[in-house]
Amino acid sequence: MSRDEKLRLAAQSLGFDIEAEIRIGGHYLPVLRDGDWLFVSGQVPRIGEMVVATGAAGAEASIEQARRGAAISAVRCLALLRKELGTLEQLARIVRLTVFVRSADGFGQQSEVADAASDLLVAVLGEAGLHARTSVGVAQLPKGATVEIELQAKAA
Amino acid sequence: MSRDEKLRLAAQSLGFDIEAEIRIGGHYLPVLRDGDWLFVSGQVPRIGEMVVATGAAGAEASIEQARRGAAISAVRCLALLRKELGTLEQLARIVRLTVFVRSADGFGQQSEVADAASDLLVAVLGEAGLHARTSVGVAQLPKGATVEIELQAKAA
Amino acid sequence: MSRDEKLRLAAQSLGFDIEAEIRIGGHYLPVLRDGDWLFVSGQVPRIGEMVVATGAAGAEASIEQARRGAAISAVRCLALLRKELGTLEQLARIVRLTVFVRSADGFGQQSEVADAASDLLVAVLGEAGLHARTSVGVAQLPKGATVEIELQAKAA
Repeated sequence: MSRDEKLRLAAQSLGFDIEAEIRIGGHYLPVLRDGDWLFVSGQVPRIGEMVVATGAAGAEASIEQARRGAAISAVRCLALLRKELGTLEQLARIVRLTVFVRSADGFGQQSEVADAASDLLVAVLGEAGLHARTSVGVAQLPKGATVEIELQAKAA
Repeated sequence: MSRDEKLRLAAQSLGFDIEAEIRIGGHYLPVLRDGDWLFVSGQVPRIGEMVVATGAAGAEASIEQARRGAAISAVRCLALLRKELGTLEQLARIVRLTVFVRSADGFGQQSEVADAASDLLVAVLGEAGLHARTSVGVAQLPKGATVEIELQAKAA
Repeated sequence: MSRDEKLRLAAQSLGFDIEAEIRIGGHYLPVLRDGDWLFVSGQVPRIGEMVVATGAAGAEASIEQARRGAAISAVRCLALLRKELGTLEQLARIVRLTVFVRSADGFGQQSEVADAASDLLVAVLGEAGLHARTSVGVAQLPKGATVEIELQAKAA
């Protein structure tokens, strides 16, 4: 199965249609390409107009909701890369990933939330999805989101 | 008008003199250049000795104060790049930007704060100022600042 | 003295044995290398199974404990780079560093905490240890850690 098809299926199971338009803000680029380097702007788990995981993990959001949010943010990153490259077959690899998890007092499972994003990247891309990663717990995220992911990748 | 002149005017309107010495900490470099890559250290909105936007956005700092802080941090980044390169005409482009906004409980307008930085970069550099971006809300920033910006750019 | 020997001694003084196995999570790579670029995943101050600096700086953790945590995280980054490269003599330079400091309300000394990491890098690597840096204060970090460091470096 092609990477694009794997992405389509993974996205579908999360309620995300990779063919639908991805709304993005107007003051920056969703993906900046410089040579083979690809920088993807921070993605919150938005499907259409709606951020589907909001609130702090460990309070308003359960760890499962936060993990689903992380997976959807990862899907958005891949959908944006696919749009930039035409097909994910043109992606050499994911390089690094930063996962920001909005965290309630005492919530220390940022790594477990980030694993849902890491696992999705590897499920779609195989070895090319492996990456260096940093996960941190933050106070607030845009639109009240539970999680935000930014990444750097490389084109083939 | 040259980029340097545009920067001078944008900075002036924010109360920032780009010819004045920019104070920086001693344990790291304000800008690290490796080949054509330029990495600018995190900048808080300091003018001379004074951090001019302090406190959490949505509490001690209004969104307008936070946005002014973001613009001043962006001016500092450009002033440092100009110092490194001699002139901003030698800058190929801004690549990516991370905007950390110190945020009060329930403040979710990190993107609106970050827009002030993005807009300033584009006002000074035009298309070369477009970038990938991540905005997050954090608990605390150095010197009590409301906003901190770090970026990666490329020399011509 | 070689860089490896300097690292061994600096680590020893912090209670860290650079020959011991470094436990890392399974869903991502501790170091991703792409060409000469090296991306090190976020490191918390773990020695063996134990995170040795936990809690928020300015509350449960003193600034000295936070600084020790930052130094241990930096040691871990260097130990991982040494493992990747065989020897730190193969390292061209550190490029950029992000220091996340879990911060209590009103704690604004993130730069002072980060200095402990910056100083360690320069103590081991000399000029090659100089870097661009961003320090922020966050709400929570994985495993309750007080500090987390991620960095980008370049191989010779």
